[in-house]
Amino acid sequence: MAISIDLDFAFRMEKVTDVLLQFEAAVIPEQRLLETDTWVTKGEHFARIHAQDDIGERVWIRAEGRYDVSYKAKVEVARLPAEIAQLEHMPPHDLPGEAVQYLFDSRYCPADRFQSFVEAEFGNNDGGARIAAIHDWIAGNFTYEPGSSTATTTGLDSFIERRGICRDYAHVMVMLARASGIPARFVSCFAPDVTPQDFHAVAEVFLTDPTTPGGGAWFLVDATEMARPDEIVKIGVGRDAADVSFMTSFGATEFIEKHVRVSRA
Amino acid sequence: MAISIDLDFAFRMEKVTDVLLQFEAAVIPEQRLLETDTWVTKGEHFARIHAQDDIGERVWIRAEGRYDVSYKAKVEVARLPAEIAQLEHMPPHDLPGEAVQYLFDSRYCPADRFQSFVEAEFGNNDGGARIAAIHDWIAGNFTYEPGSSTATTTGLDSFIERRGICRDYAHVMVMLARASGIPARFVSCFAPDVTPQDFHAVAEVFLTDPTTPGGGAWFLVDATEMARPDEIVKIGVGRDAADVSFMTSFGATEFIEKHVRVSRA
Amino acid sequence: MAISIDLDFAFRMEKVTDVLLQFEAAVIPEQRLLETDTWVTKGEHFARIHAQDDIGERVWIRAEGRYDVSYKAKVEVARLPAEIAQLEHMPPHDLPGEAVQYLFDSRYCPADRFQSFVEAEFGNNDGGARIAAIHDWIAGNFTYEPGSSTATTTGLDSFIERRGICRDYAHVMVMLARASGIPARFVSCFAPDVTPQDFHAVAEVFLTDPTTPGGGAWFLVDATEMARPDEIVKIGVGRDAADVSFMTSFGATEFIEKHVRVSRA
Amino acid sequence: MAISIDLDFAFRMEKVTDVLLQFEAAVIPEQRLLETDTWVTKGEHFARIHAQDDIGERVWIRAEGRYDVSYKAKVEVARLPAEIAQLEHMPPHDLPGEAVQYLFDSRYCPADRFQSFVEAEFGNNDGGARIAAIHDWIAGNFTYEPGSSTATTTGLDSFIERRGICRDYAHVMVMLARASGIPARFVSCFAPDVTPQDFHAVAEVFLTDPTTPGGGAWFLVDATEMARPDEIVKIGVGRDAADVSFMTSFGATEFIEKHVRVSRA
Repeated sequence: MAISIDLDFAFRMEKVTDVLLQFEAAVIPEQRLLETDTWVTKGEHFARIHAQDDIGERVWIRAEGRYDVSYKAKVEVARLPAEIAQLEHMPPHDLPGEAVQYLFDSRYCPADRFQSFVEAEFGNNDGGARIAAIHDWIAGNFTYEPGSSTATTTGLDSFIERRGICRDYAHVMVMLARASGIPARFVSCFAPDVTPQDFHAVAEVFLTDPTTPGGGAWFLVDATEMARPDEIVKIGVGRDAADVSFMTSFGATEFIEKHVRVSRA
Repeated sequence: MAISIDLDFAFRMEKVTDVLLQFEAAVIPEQRLLETDTWVTKGEHFARIHAQDDIGERVWIRAEGRYDVSYKAKVEVARLPAEIAQLEHMPPHDLPGEAVQYLFDSRYCPADRFQSFVEAEFGNNDGGARIAAIHDWIAGNFTYEPGSSTATTTGLDSFIERRGICRDYAHVMVMLARASGIPARFVSCFAPDVTPQDFHAVAEVFLTDPTTPGGGAWFLVDATEMARPDEIVKIGVGRDAADVSFMTSFGATEFIEKHVRVSRA
Repeated sequence: MAISIDLDFAFRMEKVTDVLLQFEAAVIPEQRLLETDTWVTKGEHFARIHAQDDIGERVWIRAEGRYDVSYKAKVEVARLPAEIAQLEHMPPHDLPGEAVQYLFDSRYCPADRFQSFVEAEFGNNDGGARIAAIHDWIAGNFTYEPGSSTATTTGLDSFIERRGICRDYAHVMVMLARASGIPARFVSCFAPDVTPQDFHAVAEVFLTDPTTPGGGAWFLVDATEMARPDEIVKIGVGRDAADVSFMTSFGATEFIEKHVRVSRA
Repeated sequence: MAISIDLDFAFRMEKVTDVLLQFEAAVIPEQRLLETDTWVTKGEHFARIHAQDDIGERVWIRAEGRYDVSYKAKVEVARLPAEIAQLEHMPPHDLPGEAVQYLFDSRYCPADRFQSFVEAEFGNNDGGARIAAIHDWIAGNFTYEPGSSTATTTGLDSFIERRGICRDYAHVMVMLARASGIPARFVSCFAPDVTPQDFHAVAEVFLTDPTTPGGGAWFLVDATEMARPDEIVKIGVGRDAADVSFMTSFGATEFIEKHVRVSRA
């Protein structure tokens, strides 16, 4: 499936400011970039660095005044959809070093406190079946409500209030997966059908496929049900939303506008 | 300076349980292991994996019943003490990819919310001078009070209550450094003179030394003032205490005892 | 039913300190004091003041050194057990002024955030049937676990972790009742069969009895199921635990011991 | 000083809904109503009840569709401005029963946790001098920033972020006064010069005036410095903002508009 992405956003810095951006489709085996074009305002500094888990890149810029970013890409997604409920829990003691950090609590996912809840609510299911059950529980009990959460809303807050946007759904999914002993990370991405059109966020869990030899892998889960794994274009991953903001400014910045258009090519 | 470490702890698992341990001195350039001896109860499984940032190792075990860990080591610490106040702030846009995650909020360090505070309180200082000022502010305003905090106490909680133990001091240090745009991580370690004798925790900040060419480096800071950088033996690093617990159990575990003895060899 | 209470506790103040105590059975229509004997160490000051909603009294003392309190009472409880599920919701617009404050959020009961949850989980029931459903949900999903909570644990914390002691059960009951538009307050009390023997805490909700003319009344609910309404001896009421501590010290105090013995006379 | 108030607001209820309103100048000795005119849409139900501490009234309404409230009043404020710094701390053990609840933690004012902070920052001052010092500290360190806080922002949040609106300034004032052992409550009010024009909120502390015989009294303090005590028209008081919302709806309500005009008559 090829996905077309057309993104632009702009902001203004009163004085010379450092800003970290992360907005491009990651170059990873499961995503082939057919076309790509990044255009930014010329500033004092522009440097690419590796992003978390070497998935995608972040861009450091340093500039002043109005700054425009324009990004167009066509991405072939070769990710096979998996039947989540058929996947298995990798025993913790077999988890590789790089998956371990995704078992731990993070800023917006205080997972540890939810152990009693997941045991009571999902105790009959394990591994992929547990993830499917958590997905269904969120999808069934939460209301997608733009404006109901803020940049500091945690997964715990969303769990209590049972509403939020993609970021919040992903936090709750990540939180309850980790509380179940399943590594889970937060994925910033593009996907068609996201309404209203914007950056999207989903969860990714580390499980094993019993039909495939050789260890575990990461599988995408979207509790908002707006995106299909084979149509998701990953930008970056992190412990939670704190790690994959598309823009982090180290000084006063006035945001001007953002337009995201994602479609099947 | 050679440091001798003598550690043992024991716990009991009702049924077969996976446990993640992290308790050994890390093998890194600045720490040479002169002697080392790790002894553990024989269980079903024992495997070493890389720990965060490749500093030290974690151990996965799987076992049942009483489990004993005994660890003895003599470590030559070759770390040069730095004059923190003389170090400089690396401009964010020059930060390497691996340092960037340590700018972001984590479970116990919601740094972002403290930007007004650090600007108001430490606005006259930058870089190492800022870190020194934060160190002095914590050391001057906090009370070291075992029992006043728990495993879920955040740096924000400690900031409000102005008391805690090494873990809490390190969280506040990390949090206020990140709020200042300085990457900071949490270090689990051994050090002599820690009272009462136990595992210790300090902060580490990413700064540049103007007298040394070539980029930034991590520098240890201990706001409890119990440990000197040239006598600290690092076990592991993480975003905060969530990442470097010496023992994380994936099932019910009863802790039995722990003894830590650290001395100058 | 007559209940015998035998209480003593002691604490020490380094220097002259003001302390507020609330530990005696309230003199209210539904509780007749057959015998009562309060003995305290002689200090600088001892004065009784009315407690919240004029239920019971608080005692201000001012003293130094060791302070002992001994209280013995026999109380006839004339409270009729009500069939909670048969009671009805008083429409908010009919609520009297004194009940209104118990609709609002308090320190340990951030009820407002639970409106979606109560609607989703208990939406089919109203009034007393709603309270009975909340009672059953707490009793069925929570674990009574001394030591799992602290003096700063909120009802929200307990809701997440699904465990606690009587104070926490009462907070969750109060919180979910208020989220349902039913006034609810926190009751400090004595009751036999509380294990281990100690002060007890339950919730009280404002409902109307369709078989009795004339407005609403307060009805006791104990989600821990350790106490029966006709055997509960009220000490005082409040918005939550912040209001009915048996001892609030305005200066450093070292607690020495407490013994509570409550039995059917 | 006579103050003119001209208020109107409107909201819409999809179906028949109970709403609690509190928007009129309280009739209390220090405020004489020279003129008053309340006009509301005719609905199913309209009833006045006493508000907290018998200061002012709340109104229960029950209606459907668009609901308009219009209120005009001219109020003579006879409150004498007090020199806060000259007032004295009433020893806790002399506090009357009705002041005691204002020593305790409430929803938005978790005062207890700030005892170390107030001791460290304001330890040299007591009573009115302490209140004046807290006032100056807030006024000097906080930024008045509409939009920076929400309805769930606590005094602790504001303390961390050092910004907010009148509600947040009042919460921090109340919180730090209580942490100092001084009863403090939250006052909803009207005042000229509030920018932008809206309902206003200030704190009120219980102190004694050494030049006046006979116990303690409540004194207004406005850390935003927008209102003078002799020009403040009280609407109601409470433990914090949870208690004196001008509108609390027990069902879905769409807010349409609000206009507040307060001037010196």
